[in-house]
Order: sequence, then C-alpha cells, then structure tokens
Amino acid sequence: MNGAESLARSLLASGTDTCFANPGTSEMHFVAALDRVEEMRCVLGLSETVVTGCADGYARMADKPAATLLHCGPGFANGISNIHNARRAHSPMVNIVGDQATYHRLYDPPLCSDIEGLARAVSNWVRTAACAEFLGRDAAQAVQAARSPPGQIATLIVPADCAWSDGGVVAPALSLPTRSQVAPDTLRNIARALRSGEPALLILSGQALSAEGLEAANRIAHATGARLRVPTKVGRIARGRGRVPVDAIPFGIDAAVKAFAGVRHVILVGAPEPAAFFAHPGKPSLATPHDATTHVLARPEQDALVALHWLADELGAPANVPMTEGGTPPRLGYGAFEPIAFGQTLAALLPENCIVTEDAVTSGHGLFGPTFNAAPSDWLQTTGGALGLAFCTAIGAAIACPQRKVVCLEGDGSGMYTLQALWTQAREQLDIVNVVFANRRYKILHGELLGVGAQPGPTAQDLFELSRPDLNWVKLAEGMGVEAACVQTLEGFADTFRAACARRGPFLIEFQI
Amino acid sequence: MNGAESLARSLLASGTDTCFANPGTSEMHFVAALDRVEEMRCVLGLSETVVTGCADGYARMADKPAATLLHCGPGFANGISNIHNARRAHSPMVNIVGDQATYHRLYDPPLCSDIEGLARAVSNWVRTAACAEFLGRDAAQAVQAARSPPGQIATLIVPADCAWSDGGVVAPALSLPTRSQVAPDTLRNIARALRSGEPALLILSGQALSAEGLEAANRIAHATGARLRVPTKVGRIARGRGRVPVDAIPFGIDAAVKAFAGVRHVILVGAPEPAAFFAHPGKPSLATPHDATTHVLARPEQDALVALHWLADELGAPANVPMTEGGTPPRLGYGAFEPIAFGQTLAALLPENCIVTEDAVTSGHGLFGPTFNAAPSDWLQTTGGALGLAFCTAIGAAIACPQRKVVCLEGDGSGMYTLQALWTQAREQLDIVNVVFANRRYKILHGELLGVGAQPGPTAQDLFELSRPDLNWVKLAEGMGVEAACVQTLEGFADTFRAACARRGPFLIEFQI
Repeated sequence: MNGAESLARSLLASGTDTCFANPGTSEMHFVAALDRVEEMRCVLGLSETVVTGCADGYARMADKPAATLLHCGPGFANGISNIHNARRAHSPMVNIVGDQATYHRLYDPPLCSDIEGLARAVSNWVRTAACAEFLGRDAAQAVQAARSPPGQIATLIVPADCAWSDGGVVAPALSLPTRSQVAPDTLRNIARALRSGEPALLILSGQALSAEGLEAANRIAHATGARLRVPTKVGRIARGRGRVPVDAIPFGIDAAVKAFAGVRHVILVGAPEPAAFFAHPGKPSLATPHDATTHVLARPEQDALVALHWLADELGAPANVPMTEGGTPPRLGYGAFEPIAFGQTLAALLPENCIVTEDAVTSGHGLFGPTFNAAPSDWLQTTGGALGLAFCTAIGAAIACPQRKVVCLEGDGSGMYTLQALWTQAREQLDIVNVVFANRRYKILHGELLGVGAQPGPTAQDLFELSRPDLNWVKLAEGMGVEAACVQTLEGFADTFRAACARRGPFLIEFQI
Repeated sequence: MNGAESLARSLLASGTDTCFANPGTSEMHFVAALDRVEEMRCVLGLSETVVTGCADGYARMADKPAATLLHCGPGFANGISNIHNARRAHSPMVNIVGDQATYHRLYDPPLCSDIEGLARAVSNWVRTAACAEFLGRDAAQAVQAARSPPGQIATLIVPADCAWSDGGVVAPALSLPTRSQVAPDTLRNIARALRSGEPALLILSGQALSAEGLEAANRIAHATGARLRVPTKVGRIARGRGRVPVDAIPFGIDAAVKAFAGVRHVILVGAPEPAAFFAHPGKPSLATPHDATTHVLARPEQDALVALHWLADELGAPANVPMTEGGTPPRLGYGAFEPIAFGQTLAALLPENCIVTEDAVTSGHGLFGPTFNAAPSDWLQTTGGALGLAFCTAIGAAIACPQRKVVCLEGDGSGMYTLQALWTQAREQLDIVNVVFANRRYKILHGELLGVGAQPGPTAQDLFELSRPDLNWVKLAEGMGVEAACVQTLEGFADTFRAACARRGPFLIEFQI
C-alpha cells in the first residue's frame, strides 16, 4: 500500500469520511487512492476558498472534521480566508496539502512556496510528512489535533514522494481529548458574583449556544436577573420557537457599549471579550464598562455545559423555567426591503428544522430580533469576518444534514468572493435556497467611511459601489447550473421563497433592495 | 496631514500612481485620503486575487509597480496566490495592507490574524508601520524595495491608528537600485564554452525576452550554433513577426529532456534551471543532461542585456543577423478545436501590437509554434502556476497600455478561480477580448493521473470534470456586464473574434472544445 492510500484509509479509520477537494498535480496519488477507498465522499469545489468554507460548514453541523484536499502553495493560500473563519468558529478541520517531492524542492520549481510558513499562520497544528511509513499515523494525529477541544485547524503537508512510495500503514483512530472541567473555585466565585445582586451579563458562545446550553443559561438568568447575550457573529446557535431567545451584541461599538451599560459583572461562557471588530478613533475597544469585572466561566476548550448546569443548580434555579418572550411575531411583509419587515417575513416562512447560513454583512444586522419566533433552526454565521462564507457553509451543512433544508443569506458584495460555490451546490444537487441581498454596494464600508468623519468623494464611491455595471445574480447562478429568480418586494420574495422551499435542489433568489 | 494621506502622496511621489483595491474597514482613512489625491487611479476588484493579479499584469507592462490596497488577514490571504505568480515573474508590487489599530490587537478581534506571518511567506520585503510620522518614508522604501532588480514584492502593513493619526510627512522618491553587471570572468568563461564547438543551449528569461534581448541572443546563436529556449511559462515575451522566434521548454519532463538531448552547455540568462513543475516517480527533476555543464550568464537581478551584447560582440557575431524562420504560417482553420489549427487561426487574427495574456493550462500548450508569424505582440503567462491569472493580468495590461488591444486566453477550470475579474473589465470598459477554452474538465490533471499509472475511477472523474452541470460562460460573463458569445468551430471563432476585436470594450468568447 502506498502512502497516499494509507493516508486515506487512516482518515476513514479516524472517522473522517468526507473530503472537500480541489486537487492539483502533486495530489494525484491521493486522488488515485480515493478511487480505491469508496467510503470517502469527495466533493469538488472550483476554488479553494469554497473548499475550506464547505469544510467549516460541515464541521459545525457534523461536529467532526471533514478533510480538505488542497494543492501546494497557491492552492492552500486561496483557502486561508475561510480557514480563518473556521478557526474563529472553533471548527475542527484537517487540511491535506500536497506538496513538491522532498528531493524536488531544491530546484525551486514554479509552484514551490513557503507552504509551512503559510500553514503555520492559520493552523493550530502543522506537520510536513517525512515518509510513507508514518503517513497513516500523521493522519490519525491530524484528526486527533483537529478534534481537540474546542476544535482546531490541523494541516498536514504531504510531499508527493511520501504519497507515492510504498510502505504505507493504516493507523487506528487515536483517543480524542475530552473537554477539561472548570475548577470549583472558579464556579464558586462566579456564583458569588451572581448572587451579589449587582447587574450581570453572560456572553454565551460555543457549547452554550446549543438548545441545552441556552436553557441552562436561562435558568441562571431566571434565578439571578442576569442578562444573556451572544457575540455579534457566532459559529452555530439553536434558534426559533422553543429555544431561549438571546440577542447578539450589536456590531457597532456605540450600540454595544449601550447594551453593557450598568453591567458590573461580565461572565464569559466560551466567549471572547466583547471587542469591537475594529478600533475607531476616540472610541473604546471593548464594550465592557470600565468598572465591570470580567469573569471567565469557561474557556472555549472547557466544558461549558457542565459548568452552566452546576451554576444553575447552585443558584437554586428550578429545572424548568419559563421561556422569556422575545422578538416580534412572524408576519409577511409588503413593499420594498426593510430589515425588520424582511426578518418577520423570513420568520413566517423558514422551514421547520432548517439550517440558516448567514453572511449578509449589512442586511443581516438586526435579523435576530424578528426571527426569534421562526421555526426551530440552527444558524451559522461568519465568525472571522472573511466574506463569502455562507454560500460555502451551506454546502457543508447540507452534506452533513441531507434531510434538512438549508437557507443561505448572502450579501452581494460578500457573495462575489465565493460565487463559484453555486456550481458545487448544483453538482451535488444540495437542498439550499440562497438569498442574495443585492444592495449593489459595500454598504458597510460606506457607513464606516461616514464613521471616520469623511464624506465619500468620487474615488470612495467607486470603491464602494458594485454598480456600472450591475451584477445580474440570476444569470450568474444560471451560468453555474442553479435556477434563480429576481424579486424586488417582500411579497415577491415570500412567493418565490415559498416555492423554492417546496422543491428540492439549489435555488437562488436575488433580492434587489 | 494624517498618515494615510502622507502614504498616498508618498506613493505618488515615488511614481506609483495606480492602485488596485479591495478595501475593508481598517483602510477607511486611506480611502478617504485617496479622495483627496486625485492623481492616483483606483480600480476596484471584487476579490483580492483579482486585485493582485491586476497589479501583476500592470507591472509587467508598465515596468513599475502598482499599489494594491488589501484588507487585513483574510483579505491579504485571498491575494496570495497571484502574488506568488507575480513573484515568480519578478513583477514589482507594493501591497498596502490595512490592519487593526496597534492598541486594538491585544483584544484579538475577529479579523485579527498573523498578518506578518502571511506576508513574510510571499514577500521579499515586509514592514509593519510604527506611526503616522514615518508612514510616508515607509511607502517610499516599499516602492524602492519593489523596484529593486529584478522586481520584488513589498508588503507594508498599516495599523489603522498609524493611518488616521496626524503628523504624516510626504516622503520624496528614493533612488532606484540599478542592475548589477555580470563579472568579466563569467563572461569570458561562457564565451570559451560557446567557442568550444560543443552543443550549447541558452535559456532566456526576464530582460532577455525583450525584442532587444532576443536579437542579441540570436546573434550569439548565429555565431556559435547554440540553440535558444525560454522557460515553459514566462512573465513577458516579445513575439510575432520581426521578433526572434524562440520556443518554450516543453511542460512534460519527457519532452523537456528530449529538447535538451546532446546539449553539453546550458547557459541561464536570467532564467532558473529547467526543473519539472512537479517530480514524477522514476523521472528526473531537471531536463538538463547529466553530463552537461550549467553556466549562469546572468542572474535575474543582473543586467542580461549588457551581458548578451558583450557576448555577441566577443564571439564576433555581426550586428545584424538573419532571423531564423520559425513555426507555421498563419491560416484560418475550420471545424472543431485542435491546438495547432487554433494557433494558426489565432495567428491570422491577432491585432497588431496587441498584448496576449495566457493561462490556458492544456489548450495553451504548444501555442508558440503556430503563432511565431502572428502580428507583433507581447505575451504574459502564468509564471507561478497559480490559476486564473490571465483574466486579471489582462486588466492590469489594459490599464498600463490603454491604446493596445488585449487578448486573454483562459482555461475554463483556471478561469473559475478569478471569474470575478470580468466585472472589473466591464466597470473599467477595458479593451479585452477573452477567450475561454471550455473543455469542461481539469484536463491537465486527467493527464497527470494517467502519468502516475492510474486509470481514473468514478471519484477521480468527479474531481476532474467540470460537468454536471456544465458551466455557461456566456451567462457568467453577461451576469458581470461583459458581452459574450459561444462558438464551437474554428470558423465560428474566427468570425466572432474578428468582430470582437473590431469594437472597443470587453468581450468573452466561450470556445466549446
């Protein structure tokens, strides 16, 4: 057995049975091996940023890593932005990168690059394989590293001669590191803070965003009056009717500061401190009030569920507490796009148990409030700010959960980074309804420019507007084999969305707003 | 004046007056400054790989760097693959990367990344600006670094507070390092080798691919019987009637070895050793025969023109030598696509003094032979193997040379990495005729798989074929505002290409082959 086949079989033995791929010459032996390892599902993406975005979405829903197959140097580089998003979501991912044969590197051929340097900048674990004999073990260790809590990026660089040489050995799965427990002292200190009667706010992320985690947090809120929030963008959250409605920290720092006004205890549950996405002159970096104390209930790699349950019990919360009412009722809207009305319309239409992937940078702001009472659903957002993720996570989610409808909410500016993903949606006939908010501009940048005290002149206008010519998303989608339609009103959207949800396979709705 | 404005004005003072941009929040002050610095031409690309590919094409034709404006972390990462191509072409490039404010990094906000690590992996020169006061000087030094022979990648990381703080100072242009001269001993040794009567072959790259360089090399060939070749892919070469016809080293190592058979002296003129793109089991890494001596006439950063002229004089070559006849006559072809017939057809139709950008991985092989007798033209190829370059270099070339028609030859697989570039072609109304070779597969990989002794099974087929569904390039182009047509025969191509060349503005021809 050559190294490549031992690599494929070891990934399988470790439970990694899905591979998103954009292979190149140096990966040919691995591709040939995949032909002999039928249990591995392979999905082609037409650019590497699609491939890594798919793997991210898959991991968020499957709760285990997919493999990616990427080409040396430039190929891996194209995938970095969505690896960055995955890393911020704590999604496990195993990147297999084919590289030059060991003895060929010294000739510095055209595709040779500092692939280890690139990999290190975005991975938690990096290894360059040394020989075919250990490639199976390298793979098992890569999966183990990826599955180390809270989920990590593991990148295995495979020189071509390690892949093609004989002597490959299939490695068994390695034990998976479990989440560490929060120290009792930490729990007691936070219980004391919560009992103090001083205003407290829990920021929930990771495990705490499961239905179970949210319920435990709700018990704490019920017992103590503490408030709950989630970060501005989260990897995955259980939402909709029957789930605890928790709003996000606002994107803008001014609004975020307001949301934390008067809070004396900020309690981080698998979440980072509430920092602004970017600094602005004269404005604070953190939303936290100066006189507040920040407590870490659980770091991302710790067991937040156990900690939340313990805390709720310790604080004497009943096992079942009433759900707070949140948000507005679902309602079909009419007329032009308006964020709240759109959210209410979407809430009225979202299919039961669907998955929502969201990367609508401006149009998606404020979408939580009007959708608290939608059908139960899981929402996946863009955690690292790298644009164009939702088209791709939709693919990964649909492959991880083939019985669930996926709704993808994408901006037009952000969608243009990864529109190639539509072809993979068509190729795999995935059950995805894409909604593109065509405001024909990088609207968020327009706002940011005003925020720095400048008025856009002709140059700034040109850099922010996606016009002259307008993008035609219907043609773009059809060009990749995805049926599409354009709507301009909420009632038009409702009709088209309903019809798209009633059929299987990918569809795209361009909402001109 | 704030740092951002001093940065823009210092770039201008250093002769960099074109900026390809995909800005984000952290670059808002620079964008605002660009509104006040009207002499700087700004061109928007809808993904960063487009932006850096444009800058590469611009530099190759303008012989000076453009600036790129890229967003921190993920934005820069998206641009790496075409920076890799530019580096391999020795194209000068100045990347301006907006990053988190210095004091904001410690909160590790969502877009925070190891941007220096990423930049170092692909740049010759990297600096993170320290304060507004020195930002102008940083810019001048970045341009100086980029313009150091043979052309380098300079990346300047600008924390947002350095951009927005007052105290900016416009820096004057710095002196430009000149090319170093080849040592007399080196020249004499190579002259001796060429006089020995033993078979010799010059590999020409860089400056040696200008009309002047090729003529000097031709004198040497005429005087000594030495043969001439260029690397498989070159940054820029003067071709067509009246230029010395020099063929490329074949892509496949077997054919390359054959091309070097019997050669005793390999003389590198600004070129790397003739290494295979990738190693293959049991095959050599280099095309050079074992018993050949490799001489370096000029390293890429040295003055190859002076060296070639000196050598030609020293060898007693007349100042004007007859041009060797090369290739086949231009001739309009008929029927289905076939590479040679296509090349002859293209040769019959290429406009006078046009620029050809080529990234047609398989369909472009062997295109040199049938096009030696086309109209005079400059050809730009994909030097680093990162795909999708031609759509982008076409933009940069058209902006550097607005009076010249640009013909872009792109594969369908490779074009899908950068199809966003079509929108910029439309936005800027650039005079580009794009030809997409729609073979609906990664044909080169199919060949590579056969080359490693494997027959493609169902998985490999799925990973190589761009079918189910077929891409519709006419719709894709029209979706981005570029007129397009589909052809299936050489006569259909000829008609459409002729019509496209007769008008101004971008056009796309999908050649189904």
